[in-house]
Amino acid sequence: MAKSNVSTKLLRGLYSVGRSDSSVRIVISFILSVPSFQDPLDMEDQLSEEEISIRDTARDFCREYLAPRVLELTEQRLDKSVLPAMGSVGLLGPTIQGYGCAGVNYVSYGLIAREIERHHRLGLPFNRFGAVFPVMHPINTFGTEAQKQKYLPALAKGELIGCFGLTEPNHGSDPAGMDTTAEETSGGFDIFIIWARCKWDGKVRGFILEKGLRGLSALKISNKLALRASTTGSIFMDNVKVSLDALMPGAIGLGAAFSCLNSARYGISWGVMGALESCLVQAQQYALERHQFKRPLASFQLVQKKLADAHTEIALGLQASLRVGRLKDAGRAVPEMISIVKRNNCGKALHHARVLLDILGGNAAADEYHIGRHAGNLQVTNTYEGTFDIHTLILGKAITGVQAFS
Amino acid sequence: MAKSNVSTKLLRGLYSVGRSDSSVRIVISFILSVPSFQDPLDMEDQLSEEEISIRDTARDFCREYLAPRVLELTEQRLDKSVLPAMGSVGLLGPTIQGYGCAGVNYVSYGLIAREIERHHRLGLPFNRFGAVFPVMHPINTFGTEAQKQKYLPALAKGELIGCFGLTEPNHGSDPAGMDTTAEETSGGFDIFIIWARCKWDGKVRGFILEKGLRGLSALKISNKLALRASTTGSIFMDNVKVSLDALMPGAIGLGAAFSCLNSARYGISWGVMGALESCLVQAQQYALERHQFKRPLASFQLVQKKLADAHTEIALGLQASLRVGRLKDAGRAVPEMISIVKRNNCGKALHHARVLLDILGGNAAADEYHIGRHAGNLQVTNTYEGTFDIHTLILGKAITGVQAFS
Amino acid sequence: MAKSNVSTKLLRGLYSVGRSDSSVRIVISFILSVPSFQDPLDMEDQLSEEEISIRDTARDFCREYLAPRVLELTEQRLDKSVLPAMGSVGLLGPTIQGYGCAGVNYVSYGLIAREIERHHRLGLPFNRFGAVFPVMHPINTFGTEAQKQKYLPALAKGELIGCFGLTEPNHGSDPAGMDTTAEETSGGFDIFIIWARCKWDGKVRGFILEKGLRGLSALKISNKLALRASTTGSIFMDNVKVSLDALMPGAIGLGAAFSCLNSARYGISWGVMGALESCLVQAQQYALERHQFKRPLASFQLVQKKLADAHTEIALGLQASLRVGRLKDAGRAVPEMISIVKRNNCGKALHHARVLLDILGGNAAADEYHIGRHAGNLQVTNTYEGTFDIHTLILGKAITGVQAFS
Amino acid sequence: MAKSNVSTKLLRGLYSVGRSDSSVRIVISFILSVPSFQDPLDMEDQLSEEEISIRDTARDFCREYLAPRVLELTEQRLDKSVLPAMGSVGLLGPTIQGYGCAGVNYVSYGLIAREIERHHRLGLPFNRFGAVFPVMHPINTFGTEAQKQKYLPALAKGELIGCFGLTEPNHGSDPAGMDTTAEETSGGFDIFIIWARCKWDGKVRGFILEKGLRGLSALKISNKLALRASTTGSIFMDNVKVSLDALMPGAIGLGAAFSCLNSARYGISWGVMGALESCLVQAQQYALERHQFKRPLASFQLVQKKLADAHTEIALGLQASLRVGRLKDAGRAVPEMISIVKRNNCGKALHHARVLLDILGGNAAADEYHIGRHAGNLQVTNTYEGTFDIHTLILGKAITGVQAFS
Repeated sequence: MAKSNVSTKLLRGLYSVGRSDSSVRIVISFILSVPSFQDPLDMEDQLSEEEISIRDTARDFCREYLAPRVLELTEQRLDKSVLPAMGSVGLLGPTIQGYGCAGVNYVSYGLIAREIERHHRLGLPFNRFGAVFPVMHPINTFGTEAQKQKYLPALAKGELIGCFGLTEPNHGSDPAGMDTTAEETSGGFDIFIIWARCKWDGKVRGFILEKGLRGLSALKISNKLALRASTTGSIFMDNVKVSLDALMPGAIGLGAAFSCLNSARYGISWGVMGALESCLVQAQQYALERHQFKRPLASFQLVQKKLADAHTEIALGLQASLRVGRLKDAGRAVPEMISIVKRNNCGKALHHARVLLDILGGNAAADEYHIGRHAGNLQVTNTYEGTFDIHTLILGKAITGVQAFS
Repeated sequence: MAKSNVSTKLLRGLYSVGRSDSSVRIVISFILSVPSFQDPLDMEDQLSEEEISIRDTARDFCREYLAPRVLELTEQRLDKSVLPAMGSVGLLGPTIQGYGCAGVNYVSYGLIAREIERHHRLGLPFNRFGAVFPVMHPINTFGTEAQKQKYLPALAKGELIGCFGLTEPNHGSDPAGMDTTAEETSGGFDIFIIWARCKWDGKVRGFILEKGLRGLSALKISNKLALRASTTGSIFMDNVKVSLDALMPGAIGLGAAFSCLNSARYGISWGVMGALESCLVQAQQYALERHQFKRPLASFQLVQKKLADAHTEIALGLQASLRVGRLKDAGRAVPEMISIVKRNNCGKALHHARVLLDILGGNAAADEYHIGRHAGNLQVTNTYEGTFDIHTLILGKAITGVQAFS
Repeated sequence: MAKSNVSTKLLRGLYSVGRSDSSVRIVISFILSVPSFQDPLDMEDQLSEEEISIRDTARDFCREYLAPRVLELTEQRLDKSVLPAMGSVGLLGPTIQGYGCAGVNYVSYGLIAREIERHHRLGLPFNRFGAVFPVMHPINTFGTEAQKQKYLPALAKGELIGCFGLTEPNHGSDPAGMDTTAEETSGGFDIFIIWARCKWDGKVRGFILEKGLRGLSALKISNKLALRASTTGSIFMDNVKVSLDALMPGAIGLGAAFSCLNSARYGISWGVMGALESCLVQAQQYALERHQFKRPLASFQLVQKKLADAHTEIALGLQASLRVGRLKDAGRAVPEMISIVKRNNCGKALHHARVLLDILGGNAAADEYHIGRHAGNLQVTNTYEGTFDIHTLILGKAITGVQAFS
Repeated sequence: MAKSNVSTKLLRGLYSVGRSDSSVRIVISFILSVPSFQDPLDMEDQLSEEEISIRDTARDFCREYLAPRVLELTEQRLDKSVLPAMGSVGLLGPTIQGYGCAGVNYVSYGLIAREIERHHRLGLPFNRFGAVFPVMHPINTFGTEAQKQKYLPALAKGELIGCFGLTEPNHGSDPAGMDTTAEETSGGFDIFIIWARCKWDGKVRGFILEKGLRGLSALKISNKLALRASTTGSIFMDNVKVSLDALMPGAIGLGAAFSCLNSARYGISWGVMGALESCLVQAQQYALERHQFKRPLASFQLVQKKLADAHTEIALGLQASLRVGRLKDAGRAVPEMISIVKRNNCGKALHHARVLLDILGGNAAADEYHIGRHAGNLQVTNTYEGTFDIHTLILGKAITGVQAFS
């Protein structure tokens, strides 16, 4: 790997998100002389050549394919065009071996998640990217060979769209009263991964339900504040009848269900750092271009503090996610490790995106600077796949041995 | 004043924002037995009967007129129907004496701002309500009798819509290059209060420009993240020719321009507390209704901390704004006092609205719980009329005597 | 009241805490031109002439008597000389009517607490001042006339020293296993207010125990980190026999015991603001005197933010305590109001004292700048009389109706 | 390396800081079943066998030699007995090759700093340990072979005690008016590393001054709030005459002076994490042992949040310091990297030590729980070797290219 080439690439990326006038060109040439700004602890050096190559592929796709389309993307167009495009370069279910999937390691998966979030700034493709995981993962881990053959290749190509519905634990003993929420698409899902307690033995099991089953329907929840080109929905199941081959044999117990979420959480810990990195670059450029009291905002100590705080948290958050990725690839990651990086990175990304947003002053609400949209998406990310508080209590239990949920 | 009646009214108000099913009714009856929740330091007792009466009028209007319309309001309908309705009950330019204005004191003005923000939860009417002030105030303070007669009654009735454009200080010496931003309506403003440096003597003066002048135009900035039914715009002036009667004789110097903003800032300090009060009620109800691990969210210590923190800041912020209002009514408020309450209340309201939003978990992005929309609006409020950081430096200068802007 | 005279007094006070060289004189003359720095919301105007007069007496005593002695005070000397001196000007048990007490209102009591904390900066006299309250209050409220006559005048003169021991609630059902902690003096207490569950009817009652009773002893806990000239101790009771006149007839139930703490908490809410005011003045002066990079620290934005944040919280905290004092004097204060100001003011004072401490840089640990000592004392204040977290849950219960302690 | 052995060792360490009664034994056996509590991201696995061996040597020394003496240590005894003992196991100047030094890598140096802070909890030995570095480093880097031979072996053995005095930049142009502060011992330093601007060419140069030179004296600053068994002092130089061999030939320019501080800062970033780890273990044990409302404090959500927050920051801070250590050992660390970990780890350790302190409630001020003393020391650490704010501006400059110091 030629180190300087990578740096140049990184900066070309930066360039494309800026504007082409001369003042910005000065900014960029300055950045060239401060190599640590974009990679303060030289993570590049901690990656293998293969990981860098995968990351660059993801970055090129995001930059060349996603970025130009991102402002016009509607949810419909996303699913019809973007998912297949993502699939074509191997970004869907990338850690799965075979079945048309890329079979990369978890560090690479994290790097992809980071690039997607960094470049598009819409919350949308990542949301879809992230949502693919809890669908493909259980099929791959718990499904029969027939189920894998049937669903995985199509999911990897982005031709099939799935969602994940986990019965809420507080209704677990009463299947008739269970509340199941899931992510769905406006076009409807093609398949639904559903977890339910089985009356015959009281155990929770995972099923693959196909669209069109009698009694199965999904209702959109309109969502205008964030992830706005996306939707969140509720799945309704009224006496849905399924045959035995809907059941994933290995998917027994809530632990199996949670395992699907854990890998998604790991990916989120990278994605939110990518989002915050994008906010930092935007805020830095804005602070250099914008003048107040005849000097650039970037010369204000109060602005520099905001930038420095975000910058440090990115450096630390990425190192921690990288560490968890290495442990995951070595088969030694435990759920608490993922709680640490999911909770920390989501919480920090949300907080610092909001702080950076303040640098924009009256322009904070303007779409073109992207930070506000990131902040809105990060609010959602901070709560799904386990809220900040739930992960606090998971870690609290790990530290004290005492459960404080109930 | 019959104390118990007022409390009942307050709680009727609460009731209308909730839902009518039985679980909520229990919540409300509970609140009745904890009188301090909605008014922890008994501010009711610090208000005169007249102030309470004005507040109740504003509250009734907001509840009966605004609230049912608020979800469907578009900006067009707002200006065409809501502003005249607000005018009809005296809510526009309420502190002005005569010219069809209500002539209430500044404490009452604050109470009105708080009710508007508390009840509608859209950022929209307040935005318009707030924007009216920096238009009517300079005309009333600096204008000729003819200007007052011409504009104030129509503005007070909501028939005329104005905006306020203050030349940015960093371009002050070059009128040709000045950047003027303002709030405008989609229908166009009828009048523009513009401040510009006069070449003949170098002094800044205020002008009233009417719509239709050659060279005067306004461009909307689409704004999708917050205040989304509203717009922020730029005013363009290309050799606009005005006659001498456009000039407000008393409006000389940046101090005059800033004085218009100061009263608006004071009103904002009340409005944001009203918004946070609304968030607190929503979050409290949600926490009582929603169960996790078989107990209400309200029983979680981490949730109670979020509620208690917001509750205390509301109590303190309102007391401080009330104090500044009393000083303003006594003619003894100085700008630094307003910086204290504007900066503190906006910053705290924004922070705690976001914290309360986390209680909603996966529902944080759903419109129906309102907190997310409040949080978005508060982000904007935290920056306009002087960002948090600028007020920090204004106060820093007051404390140390040293200017740290430049 | 001549307003300007008061201001001059206030500033004379400031002068005495500074140094007498010329650079400081400049600082002070500057402050004269920014009247709002020391009293940003003009609280002076909210006080009666009598309250101002009481406050000034306390201030003069603190400045002339306490301040010169404060650095050399040991606990022994404190009790032997300072308490009687405090008593001689009416500062002990000041709200009690008769029995040699001053009989001032609760606002005045708050003003006294604030002056004591503001001027001495040792935590010591206030600690003693504060500790007197939970001893005198129960005797005055629940005691017999004989008990009042016997103890109150001597306590008011500082001749008798008492402590307050409240049986911990978690051992309430088993008197043999109860843990009682209390504040004591090295010289031993003269009297102990003890609360215990009575086996004959299961009710909690309050007793006055005198030093020397067989089986009653106290053990010091050495305490080197804060309040270091003071001590905290444990009271041991091994089959202490008392006659019936040790019982306070009205002191029945935990509510009676808690009522003693509530007034102390109210006083603390004022005292900690006084401490933070002292920190702010110290930090402001240091920031003006100290230069870095050839300009005063006071010109750094990061320093101004620290000062402005503390300044605002003082303004708000004092307004809230004043409001609660007025309600207390009107007989309408409820415990939750006191929880609001105790929790908020202690938490904010602690946080901002620490932030201001950072301005001192390498001098943060030096005694002469006082802020570090204040910060240490405020740490203790934040936890005694109910920790921050406990008051959070008290307020959480008031807001939600749900108890989250257990 | 047998992994399980290491874990056992770690836990033996834990055991020794606890108490030997049965309730604690339960705690510890619990911890054994949650391996991630003490090493949540399995740093053990990232260390070489040699690094683990060095770390264990340091840990054993701290546990067996330092810990039993630490509560009685006075500064006098420290220098006369502890420094030689530290020297005897190679803990002084450990990264230097030859001259009786251990010649370990920078990761090992960080691990030693962490153990020293973790085990003794007095701030004292580390302070001395840390202070040795800026004395030995410049001699080793910039000194002549004769200077190295003369001073390094004796410094490494703890027989010679040095201090570091850096002329303050704001007086740089006027040597007569320069202020030099330094760390000294009560017994006096034996040698002083002094930086001064040379009148003959205006360049800053480093000198080694020996005790006893005419005109050279040092004054203690009493320091009662933290590092209280230590002292901070001022060096006075009144026309001190030195011969040419006092000059370190390579020590030219402020950059050379700052390079001495950079390695010390790196070590601090590890040491403060060790201190916070100690606080976490103390707080966790206290929370398990102490009951309130009939359940352990550890079962309170508000307590678990405090523990989880500290736990995560330790995990992240150690990973970041390890990364910087690896880069330093590879010769690729730049000063900004050190600013990131120094600023972040000191700021986070200070903040979270204070938060954990709150768990102790009324016992926060008691010495025996150690957290308060750690918090006091961390306050000092947060400001020396570059305050938090200065590192903020160093990073701000790296990010924006704009200098905001002056």
